Amino acid sequence: MKPILFYFDLSSPYAYLMAHRIDQLAARFDRDVEWHPIMLGAVFKISGSSPLSSQPIKWEYAQMDLARMARFMELPWTLPEPFPIAAIASSRAFYWINDHDPLLAKRFAVACLDTYFAEGRNIAKSEVLSDIVNNLGLDGDEMLRSIKDPVIKEKLKQETDSAIEIGVCGSPYIIIDGEPFWGADRLWMIRRWLQSGGW
Amino acid sequence: MKPILFYFDLSSPYAYLMAHRIDQLAARFDRDVEWHPIMLGAVFKISGSSPLSSQPIKWEYAQMDLARMARFMELPWTLPEPFPIAAIASSRAFYWINDHDPLLAKRFAVACLDTYFAEGRNIAKSEVLSDIVNNLGLDGDEMLRSIKDPVIKEKLKQETDSAIEIGVCGSPYIIIDGEPFWGADRLWMIRRWLQSGGW
Repeated sequence: MKPILFYFDLSSPYAYLMAHRIDQLAARFDRDVEWHPIMLGAVFKISGSSPLSSQPIKWEYAQMDLARMARFMELPWTLPEPFPIAAIASSRAFYWINDHDPLLAKRFAVACLDTYFAEGRNIAKSEVLSDIVNNLGLDGDEMLRSIKDPVIKEKLKQETDSAIEIGVCGSPYIIIDGEPFWGADRLWMIRRWLQSGGW
Repeated sequence: MKPILFYFDLSSPYAYLMAHRIDQLAARFDRDVEWHPIMLGAVFKISGSSPLSSQPIKWEYAQMDLARMARFMELPWTLPEPFPIAAIASSRAFYWINDHDPLLAKRFAVACLDTYFAEGRNIAKSEVLSDIVNNLGLDGDEMLRSIKDPVIKEKLKQETDSAIEIGVCGSPYIIIDGEPFWGADRLWMIRRWLQSGGW
């Protein structure tokens, strides 16, 4: 069976919630998950959307909802400052790791999301990102050099372009055998879809 | 116990789905639901949002998702033409009926949503709206006169203003004892909230 696809932005709070559940849920149905960080800002440019935090009323709701979802899922939660950020360095670092070790790349992504949304530390800062990489047993300095590599830069651009092409309209965005599910609040539907094979 | 509040726009497809479930769900927990149609366009003006159908990429997703949600909930579904519409006449008619008979007003709202989203008939047209009202045993002509009454017009304006004031950011929007839930896809969360008393 084809892997389940998980598109997300590394600065997306609902992706933080999804990242802590999707692999475990998929495993119950013997499915693998392929992770694809993208730059959501590029999606927003085309859809005419904007970050949640720039949308009055909705942002008030989302702040309450994120805290409530995190409590429900028993995950730590903090609204980081600054928010949002451009998670371009961490996304490039993901693909740098992913080239050699996809499983470690997932652990890196979870560590980035945790660092930002549980600890409130800014993963756009080189020293924070370097710490995360060092803690995974990799070389933070090598990472900082590698994410300037045009090949890595191009990889993130291609992943983002390809996400836009297949209709990714937000983060997190899950695709199961061509069927898309947008939002961490669709975990219930993903579970039922995997259970039933669709309807 | 205070009634559960159900804010929605009568031209909102996700409200159509919610309208077919919220009272039954609430009844399982001995709770009543108070229905409040509003003009979502006024909310959009303040939140800087826009109708789903004017948002590229998201609208592609939403069209697929609405059909899928309707299949899951075993409700008929059609994307009406034109969509969206300003459901101002039907919303005013709701409050005209609601003054005398809140239960009948709910039946009227469901009939409007069904006429638009199951049958694909335009409820912004006087003759369609009049038919719906006649079928409920009321006088369609009296309704068409009454919705021009400044008191009825003001009522809809006040309901919309009050919704904005309490943070209603979309449709459907459910409030349980001050706790808001946005979206038809949050029925699972509403159920768990009612079961557990919150978390």
